[in-house]
Order: sequence, then structure tokens, then C-alpha cells
Amino acid sequence: MTAPHPSLDFWFEFASTYSYLSAARITDLAENAGVAIRWRPFLLGPIFAAQGWSTSPFTLYPAKGAYMWQDVGRIAAARGLPFQKPARFPQNGLVAARVALAALAADKTSGAAFCVAVYRAQFGDGADITDPDVLRGLLTQTGAAPRALDQAGSPGIKQLLRKQTEAAQARGIFGAPSFTVGDALYWGDDRLDQAMEHARSMDAGAG
Amino acid sequence: MTAPHPSLDFWFEFASTYSYLSAARITDLAENAGVAIRWRPFLLGPIFAAQGWSTSPFTLYPAKGAYMWQDVGRIAAARGLPFQKPARFPQNGLVAARVALAALAADKTSGAAFCVAVYRAQFGDGADITDPDVLRGLLTQTGAAPRALDQAGSPGIKQLLRKQTEAAQARGIFGAPSFTVGDALYWGDDRLDQAMEHARSMDAGAG
Repeated sequence: MTAPHPSLDFWFEFASTYSYLSAARITDLAENAGVAIRWRPFLLGPIFAAQGWSTSPFTLYPAKGAYMWQDVGRIAAARGLPFQKPARFPQNGLVAARVALAALAADKTSGAAFCVAVYRAQFGDGADITDPDVLRGLLTQTGAAPRALDQAGSPGIKQLLRKQTEAAQARGIFGAPSFTVGDALYWGDDRLDQAMEHARSMDAGAG
Repeated sequence: MTAPHPSLDFWFEFASTYSYLSAARITDLAENAGVAIRWRPFLLGPIFAAQGWSTSPFTLYPAKGAYMWQDVGRIAAARGLPFQKPARFPQNGLVAARVALAALAADKTSGAAFCVAVYRAQFGDGADITDPDVLRGLLTQTGAAPRALDQAGSPGIKQLLRKQTEAAQARGIFGAPSFTVGDALYWGDDRLDQAMEHARSMDAGAG
């Protein structure tokens, strides 16, 4: 294909259960639709803090939290995805997000596979994704650049993640996963198909 | 049909845009699925207040609010539903909910039609649903009991709405629309089909 791919920006936070649902299926969906995905890890913490939340709304609002585990559990079961509540929730996704940015910068395909693996480890196996050894194992397993772990602490990567989070906030993003196609924002795994269809239709418009 | 219908409880708040999306389609879906719907208007205000919110999260969190109008607008357009932002949002759904309870008690079918009409008036035409004249017109238009407007102020109906809201809260409901089938809770118009399928499958189990 020589025509420019239509594309979709996938904004995700590693602590987010619903982002796991999307990460697990977005690569196949995008291939079928002929859409290029830009994987954009960011942090919800600063965005939540800006609206006065000290942690996840699922922790702040227990009824919402109880429902979320029920809801994601049902969806994961229907999709044949392993799912469990990790010992700690929410986990701090900061280091994983920095490693992901470094891995994605080195190679998009294995970087994306690393992101999916981080979610699977956390919500499929209950792993601690703040543990550098866990992250190192996932880099190796997915063929992503092992040096991404060392690069994660560099000023450049730290700055990249800050900018990414600011860009998300400026874009009107308030939760994860979110998807953007041009000016249009879609929030939640429930909107992934709609966002993908929007991106796909941009191709027809351009071609 | 003489076998007992499988059933689904539909919990809605008149100020809720996503409840409009569900109210507009639940009757047809339920008929196709052979599921009886129990229409249960309740108030989100006391539930939001209990978690420290003074008004709608769409007002408290502007990014979430801006997104909601975009999102509901897209869905309504795709379904051919008229949709606009009323001059005031959120409107106080208290009187409409009381009238709805009285109308539903008098007759389920026309009471449900009245509920749908309240949503259409508010979000399709931008009407003020706190205006008794608007509600009276909608009762007449849908063949619901006109006396429901007078009954709305009675101690019995006031108490019924309080109990309904307490029941919602006790049930773990934190937003609208919500759907319950036995012990299972589903939140959001996005879950209506899943909830309906669950209810329908109860029939197979019973039969």
C-alpha cells in the first residue's frame, strides 16, 4: 500500500482496566480496517488531580469500583481474555509508561506488543508492573528493546511522558482508554469500534 | 404466552441524556426479546450528594461534560433520534419522576410512553420538564392518566420515589441508566443489549 494510512491515536494508562480491554484487541481491529495506530501512553494521575481526585474514581467511589470489576470481568470472559484483580489497584503506571515510550520509540511493533504484555501481566496474571524485573522480562518476551528500561529514567523520556500527558489534557481527554481521529474524541473501550470506523472512513475520503 | 416473562428493571433519571438513549429503544428491544420491563424512575441527586457531588458530573467535570454532548450527539444522529442541549442542564427531574411513578402505577404501557415522551420533549425539543404544563401536555399526548400530575404531590408518591431512590442506592446503582437482572447490574446505554440478552436467557433457564 503506498497511499497514506488513515490513523487513530490510542491514549492509554497502564493502571486502567478498560485500557486493557482495548489494548488486547486494537492491533487486530486496526489491521482489518487498514488503520495505523499511534500508541500513546499517558498518565491519568495529573488529569485526575486537576479535577480534585487523589486517586482512581474506582477507589474514590466504591459503588463505581465494585461495578467496574463486575463489568470488566463479564466482558473479558465473553472475549476469552484472562482477567483478575491485582493485589494492588490502581498500580502506579509511571515507570511502565516511560519504558513503553522508550520501547515504542525504538520500534513500533515490538513496542506495541510490550504494551499489550504489560496489561496481560497485570490484569491477566496479577503481576506487579512497578517491578523493573517484571518489565525487563516483558521487554525480552516481546522482542522489544531491552535498553528501554534504562532509557526510561532519562530526562528525554521523562519529558516525553510529561508532554504526552499535557497533550492528552489539552485534547480534552479525561479518562482511558481514549481514541482520537482528527478532532473527534472517543472515550472508553465501548467506543473503539466507532473510532476505528471513523478512521477507516478517512481513507475513503482521502482516496 | 402463559409462561412467566423474564424481566429486566430499567432504572432511569429524567435529567440523564444517556437514559434518553435507552428509553427511546428499550420498548422495542424488550418486545423482540420477550422481556418485561419494569420502569423505575429514581433520582441521582441524593446518590451524587452521598459521594460528595453537588450536581451532575458533566457539570462538575467540564471535559467530561463537553465529551458527553459530542458522544450522545453522535449516537443520537446514528439512530435517527432528535437531540439538542436544553437551555438548562441538568434539569431537576423530581416532579417528572413523581408524575411518572403515578402514571406507571395507573397503567404500565401509557406510563412508559409518558416517560419516553418526557425524554423526547427535553432532549429532542429542548422543553422544560419542570413545567407542569409541559408534563400535563405529555400525559395527554401519550394517553397516560392526567390525574398523575395531581397525584405527584401526594405523600404516597413522594414516599414511593424516596424508596425507589434508596432501593437504587442499596442495589449499588451510581449512575443512569442502569439495568438489573437478578443480582446483575449493568450501567449505561452501552450495556442495554447485554442486559437484555441476560434477561432473555433467564427464560430459557426457567422453561
